[in-house]
Amino acid sequence: MKILNNSFTVSTNKRNELVDITDKVKKVIAESGISEGNVIVYCPHTTAAITINENADPDVVHDILLTLADLIPQNKSGYQHSEGNSDAHVKSSILGCSQTVLIDNGQMQLGTWQGIYFCEFDGPRRRTVLVQITGQ
Amino acid sequence: MKILNNSFTVSTNKRNELVDITDKVKKVIAESGISEGNVIVYCPHTTAAITINENADPDVVHDILLTLADLIPQNKSGYQHSEGNSDAHVKSSILGCSQTVLIDNGQMQLGTWQGIYFCEFDGPRRRTVLVQITGQ
Amino acid sequence: MKILNNSFTVSTNKRNELVDITDKVKKVIAESGISEGNVIVYCPHTTAAITINENADPDVVHDILLTLADLIPQNKSGYQHSEGNSDAHVKSSILGCSQTVLIDNGQMQLGTWQGIYFCEFDGPRRRTVLVQITGQ
Repeated sequence: MKILNNSFTVSTNKRNELVDITDKVKKVIAESGISEGNVIVYCPHTTAAITINENADPDVVHDILLTLADLIPQNKSGYQHSEGNSDAHVKSSILGCSQTVLIDNGQMQLGTWQGIYFCEFDGPRRRTVLVQITGQ
Repeated sequence: MKILNNSFTVSTNKRNELVDITDKVKKVIAESGISEGNVIVYCPHTTAAITINENADPDVVHDILLTLADLIPQNKSGYQHSEGNSDAHVKSSILGCSQTVLIDNGQMQLGTWQGIYFCEFDGPRRRTVLVQITGQ
Repeated sequence: MKILNNSFTVSTNKRNELVDITDKVKKVIAESGISEGNVIVYCPHTTAAITINENADPDVVHDILLTLADLIPQNKSGYQHSEGNSDAHVKSSILGCSQTVLIDNGQMQLGTWQGIYFCEFDGPRRRTVLVQITGQ
């Protein structure tokens, strides 16, 4: 059983944006040679997140970002954090900073419509994603 | 150290429903023979989720579903996804598509009141749950 | 490859409070002797959660708690659970009961601004946090 650590960068272009990183994760798994196990995709930033959702119709991503923006406005009476990105911190905790996907026969066991997204909530920025693969 | 993959199906009966799958996960662990490690419970669907919460008083589940429905309505001005289930996709990302539970002495280390739920947000449907057990 | 289970307690002082437990988790990792792998931080309570967010400016924690309180009020028309803590159960599922952090060279791979928080939503109470370290 092996544990391999890797990482890649993501450049975001908007303040709020979901970037499909499925292919980048697949590439890391292929290079690892691990065929049975799991992969942890981890975001080391506090104004971003990792989520798994539909990557067929881009309108799904639109509707996720719209709903989050309506629930968690950028400017809100009572916010104390002075950087103007409190909303981004809240969204980060609500979606979570990592996701785990199973690997079987060398393939991630994503559902038919599932893709892995890097969630930018305070862009544009250059971001890092950590990847750990455990298995054999 | 071993990694074992398994799965089971869940039939849901309502559009929004939390189905207690704790016993199904326990059965997979018992069959695995693994007594120290952890179990990942993974939902490969983009309009459903996995969560852990109280399974003693069913009113807790009622109140979770009520709150999610109030925050994330099925029909909302601005939704672009044409399938009428944007709310289900949002709920899926907010609760998350997997949960990890520790295993010690052959038993899941759930708290006294914790159960594992499959969260249906676009049912009724027949769904699949993936289970991966790592340990010895 | 080893799997080690440990735990510690957290005493909370308010109904809603985020307690920084990063140093407690670091101590468990240092004692484990594991330098490559990952750590799962797990909350066995259904009215609390674990999250990762900024631990530099305490105003970030204030704004997270404020936003959650506005979205998920303690008293809400329609709640059926009679203990008066339905909001705490909802917050628990939304933030999630565990977080996984990677370990490399004996150090948690937290981002510059990331800390691990125990999230109390129905305190004050004395709580338990489970920690599992897998690696070599």
